[in-house]
Amino acid sequence: MSAWVLPDYIADVLPSEARHIEELRRSLLDTARGYGYELVMPPLLEHLESLLTGTGEALDLQTFKLVDQLSGRMMGLRADTTSQVARIDAHLLNRSGVTRLCYCGPVLHTRPDRPHATREPLQFGAEIYGHAGLEADLEILLLSLDCLKAAQVQGVSVDMADARIVRSLLADVPLDAAGSARVHAALAAKDASELAALTKTFPAASREGLLALVQLYGDERVLIEAEKTLKPSPALREALSNLKWLANRLAGTHVTFDLADLRGYAYYSGARFAIYAQHASAALVRGGRYDEVGAVFGRNRPAVGFSLDVKQLVAAVAPRALRAAIRAPWGDAPELRAAIAALRGRGETVVCVLPGHESGVDEFHCDRELVHAAGQWIVQAI
Amino acid sequence: MSAWVLPDYIADVLPSEARHIEELRRSLLDTARGYGYELVMPPLLEHLESLLTGTGEALDLQTFKLVDQLSGRMMGLRADTTSQVARIDAHLLNRSGVTRLCYCGPVLHTRPDRPHATREPLQFGAEIYGHAGLEADLEILLLSLDCLKAAQVQGVSVDMADARIVRSLLADVPLDAAGSARVHAALAAKDASELAALTKTFPAASREGLLALVQLYGDERVLIEAEKTLKPSPALREALSNLKWLANRLAGTHVTFDLADLRGYAYYSGARFAIYAQHASAALVRGGRYDEVGAVFGRNRPAVGFSLDVKQLVAAVAPRALRAAIRAPWGDAPELRAAIAALRGRGETVVCVLPGHESGVDEFHCDRELVHAAGQWIVQAI
Repeated sequence: MSAWVLPDYIADVLPSEARHIEELRRSLLDTARGYGYELVMPPLLEHLESLLTGTGEALDLQTFKLVDQLSGRMMGLRADTTSQVARIDAHLLNRSGVTRLCYCGPVLHTRPDRPHATREPLQFGAEIYGHAGLEADLEILLLSLDCLKAAQVQGVSVDMADARIVRSLLADVPLDAAGSARVHAALAAKDASELAALTKTFPAASREGLLALVQLYGDERVLIEAEKTLKPSPALREALSNLKWLANRLAGTHVTFDLADLRGYAYYSGARFAIYAQHASAALVRGGRYDEVGAVFGRNRPAVGFSLDVKQLVAAVAPRALRAAIRAPWGDAPELRAAIAALRGRGETVVCVLPGHESGVDEFHCDRELVHAAGQWIVQAI
Repeated sequence: MSAWVLPDYIADVLPSEARHIEELRRSLLDTARGYGYELVMPPLLEHLESLLTGTGEALDLQTFKLVDQLSGRMMGLRADTTSQVARIDAHLLNRSGVTRLCYCGPVLHTRPDRPHATREPLQFGAEIYGHAGLEADLEILLLSLDCLKAAQVQGVSVDMADARIVRSLLADVPLDAAGSARVHAALAAKDASELAALTKTFPAASREGLLALVQLYGDERVLIEAEKTLKPSPALREALSNLKWLANRLAGTHVTFDLADLRGYAYYSGARFAIYAQHASAALVRGGRYDEVGAVFGRNRPAVGFSLDVKQLVAAVAPRALRAAIRAPWGDAPELRAAIAALRGRGETVVCVLPGHESGVDEFHCDRELVHAAGQWIVQAI
């Protein structure tokens, strides 16, 4: 095999796309900064038990493992940044009040997490710790919508769910882990006949509730229908009223509900959301409340957050135009060098044509050039 | 062991330092962009033979290895980005003219490469392909100095060497790889007695030249001394004259020479340099010419480049002040939301105080607040 062949689902990012990713990266971090989210940079490598404790089997299977030759212990390459940020909040910062953190860096997956996905997403995310009220959920929702706006994503639509709904319907049902996984899988696949078979022995209210969930997706009428159909419990009522409160505050945004949506159910503890864009089949953003995430680090703080893959995002928006550059001759005369430095200082790209390459291809589409006229260096249109 | 303990030489980057790293990262990329260097993003993971062919044993030992479960093949986590960029130039872009590329991303090392170094540097670098003349060497030198200036590094000093000098002195000496490694190690350690022992059977000119090298460090008089002392050969003469040409064009920068400096000798093919700063013991930047780097990818183009670790850089410069933020009350009134959005749109950080956290610690050192007065929202000093 040739030396330049890359592993499957691993790719180089070439100049035009890399430039766009870098622009999006800055827009996203600046948007989060505008909301008061402080940047942190957790490491790519950690001891396996720090990365994986309490995060579920799916993340374990997604995580590359290797041996640390310094300690002989197993390390993992992060497949997700959320638990690392929870560790930073719980242990390193250890603040008593509200803490807002954001991050942007690569994560690695042993297998692509959906067809054609990269195994090296560039994960951007933001998280707020220390506030149990819905105001934090709303801030995270609004921030993620602002991030997509900054990235110029068109046709945004928010799909909402709540981890407490299925949990409350299964509360009185004695189920082992395997049985629970089967029920969740049938719900996720909206497979009513499988679900009917699995829930045959369940109490009637749970059984009917779970079967009804499969149909509970669509606009805000879903919430009214859910109130009528599902077995009432305090957790269920709170979940439905939370979803209504949040949706009411997203004026101008298309909102739908899918009460059987279960992505990351091992992880979320309250309202959760996915954001879709026109012409994009997979969700661009996933987020919600996961109050238990810091428990393993000894600090069970309320937490809400979201994350997205910048590489996926860049494929969902129109490419941005390259800023035109200025061509300059090569030379070491101080006046020429000073003229070039001044232009670069003003943010211009000045490409020096090296001797012998005067007829080379201009990758920067220079629209101006630096020329010597009447004793000075001036910029003129090409 | 507690779940929050990180592996040795691996660390979280907390907000104040992360913010500074991000600022430096942008300055460096913008500086390279100003020179016309196009950003590329090679992957963290590659097949081991792509990463390591022709790069020497040191990089092999620095590289974490793991098995790709999709293919069963060995992959490596990049310990250096240079050969990846050479692959991109040689195979993906495959341009005939001058190609300027830059990159900024993490690399991982199995062991710290100097005492107290991180095992996860953030490597920034720039490379120019396709020009064999010294103009390319000079551009890379000037760009790296401009990068350090953009990072506000104080007391910069350039130390120059040339890979052809030792090579020309060893040209007529029959030496196996192990013997060559011992000579290079003795030179690097400036160990004259060991060198005398190792070169006992060498031709007199080579022997005396190698022994003289140990003393050939200091200011530009070193070049004159080298011309007098060393066995003259075309390669040696060219190397010395190249160093002189380059040094003459670094007006205003402190330049020294160390002709026995051999870092990365398996790699460089011509003039090379290291840049130091006041109060920093290790070089901040290393670079030079490595014309053979693309050969393994089927395209042996002239190449010059440099790289640095942004995490090391941030420790060598003064911290930057945090931009002061604006505090705002929480609320969902449209006028309040619009006022906050307008401020954020102007680049301000506006931190909403969530209900119940009015007395929380202000991590952003807010110097202004948004208050409701006379029917409108206004910003006033705190």
